[in-house]
Amino acid sequence: MDNRPIGVFDSGLGGLTAVKELMNQLPGESIVYFGDTGRVPYGTRSNQTVIKYVLQDIRFLLNFDIKFIIIACGTASSIALEAVQDKFEVPIIGVVNSTAEQAVRTTVNKKIGIIGTQGTINSGAYERKIKELDSEVKTFSKPCPLFVPLVENGYLDNKVVRLVAEEYLEPLIAEQVDTLILGCTHYPLLKKVISDIMGEHVRLIDPGVETARYVKELFKSNHMLADSRSKSTYRYFVSDSIDNFSRLGSLFLQKQINDAVEKIDIEKY
Amino acid sequence: MDNRPIGVFDSGLGGLTAVKELMNQLPGESIVYFGDTGRVPYGTRSNQTVIKYVLQDIRFLLNFDIKFIIIACGTASSIALEAVQDKFEVPIIGVVNSTAEQAVRTTVNKKIGIIGTQGTINSGAYERKIKELDSEVKTFSKPCPLFVPLVENGYLDNKVVRLVAEEYLEPLIAEQVDTLILGCTHYPLLKKVISDIMGEHVRLIDPGVETARYVKELFKSNHMLADSRSKSTYRYFVSDSIDNFSRLGSLFLQKQINDAVEKIDIEKY
Repeated sequence: MDNRPIGVFDSGLGGLTAVKELMNQLPGESIVYFGDTGRVPYGTRSNQTVIKYVLQDIRFLLNFDIKFIIIACGTASSIALEAVQDKFEVPIIGVVNSTAEQAVRTTVNKKIGIIGTQGTINSGAYERKIKELDSEVKTFSKPCPLFVPLVENGYLDNKVVRLVAEEYLEPLIAEQVDTLILGCTHYPLLKKVISDIMGEHVRLIDPGVETARYVKELFKSNHMLADSRSKSTYRYFVSDSIDNFSRLGSLFLQKQINDAVEKIDIEKY
Repeated sequence: MDNRPIGVFDSGLGGLTAVKELMNQLPGESIVYFGDTGRVPYGTRSNQTVIKYVLQDIRFLLNFDIKFIIIACGTASSIALEAVQDKFEVPIIGVVNSTAEQAVRTTVNKKIGIIGTQGTINSGAYERKIKELDSEVKTFSKPCPLFVPLVENGYLDNKVVRLVAEEYLEPLIAEQVDTLILGCTHYPLLKKVISDIMGEHVRLIDPGVETARYVKELFKSNHMLADSRSKSTYRYFVSDSIDNFSRLGSLFLQKQINDAVEKIDIEKY
């Protein structure tokens, strides 16, 4: 039994889609969330910059007697996980591995599509993991750089987002993928549009769901679950103004946030 | 005569639309440009963060024996100019004042529209300056947060950008503005779409053009022009990878960039 909190971080508030799944699947766990809203987005930055930011994000979370760290950001997981994992004693996971595993388990025709930011797609992290799991699987990837700003401006299902999604997804439909990884925290909010365009037979894999499921199993088998009688607490930190937090935060978390939100200076870490 | 360079900075590469106008109108001047690509965008950040970033940007440029600083970024001009202007000896201007002056000179029906980022619109800087120049002018403003990502993804004129622009501009058409300030560096690239939607009778005011014109007059009357026989030089600095620079840079500058580009660590300043 381990009542210490889980640390979760993301380039911004999108990682709250993963926190939502953790809350659902592991209601007893306390969570400290850091959203790097002062330096979002990571998806268009260089690898060197992303790694530097991720090291700071982890050092910040380590102030909270954390038992486990989840990199909720698709870009940071893809680019930085391997470079930072060995630098700290606390176990750190990203969203790539468990998501890739679920995609490989799901596909029947062995054709998996991957969508994400430019950084995630350029990194090739999903492709590498999938090939490692099953060398016969073919992957087809496509960066969808407009999805994040569309979601953040509340365009979740309208003519504009459908037009953009059709353009992005068209090559993946042509390749007849039967499984599609939604490789960025924001994309699950476009699930309906993406599913309509891809067709019902294409299974969408949500990294937040898969990562929460993986963490639950891992905690169970390693006796790391929190005491179910203890009350879980949630704390949120951001690196820019907390004004945007309630609007975007509740969009991603899909519930009202009444817990404490604090602003910190991430460049100190 | 003053052969020292002009310093120009922006939250990213969009400020090169202003540099283009300076090159056109003041071909003898040397320019040092800083694009804060490691921390772009400023338009969604808090005022406090924008002011902090602008102070660093200016301190960086002061390493180059600069005679004059232009804040090319609409957001930074609107939010930070007054807070930073008195802190340095070098003259610093933003894009707001000369743009507002031109808009007031242009309008006939005394109805001016302003479009920009959320930060620029929230600041009310254009509105204040316009009221100060002519209290009878009515202003109507509208943030257009999707224009920047659309431009940066090469959506300059297609069905998507037209749909988004129609939605944003509809209330300004309803108010019958006859003059529209394109209050963000990226928006001049959407001039054709915006003009088609607003109608030919609406005059579009481009801050880059107006600011270059103002600087030219100011330099002339203060004997600050560079020696026309000296060769002008251009230097570019960014705070993230220089990889994106050639693609986006030449989009904004509308010519190929063959000059030196260097990456710097802006957090040191």
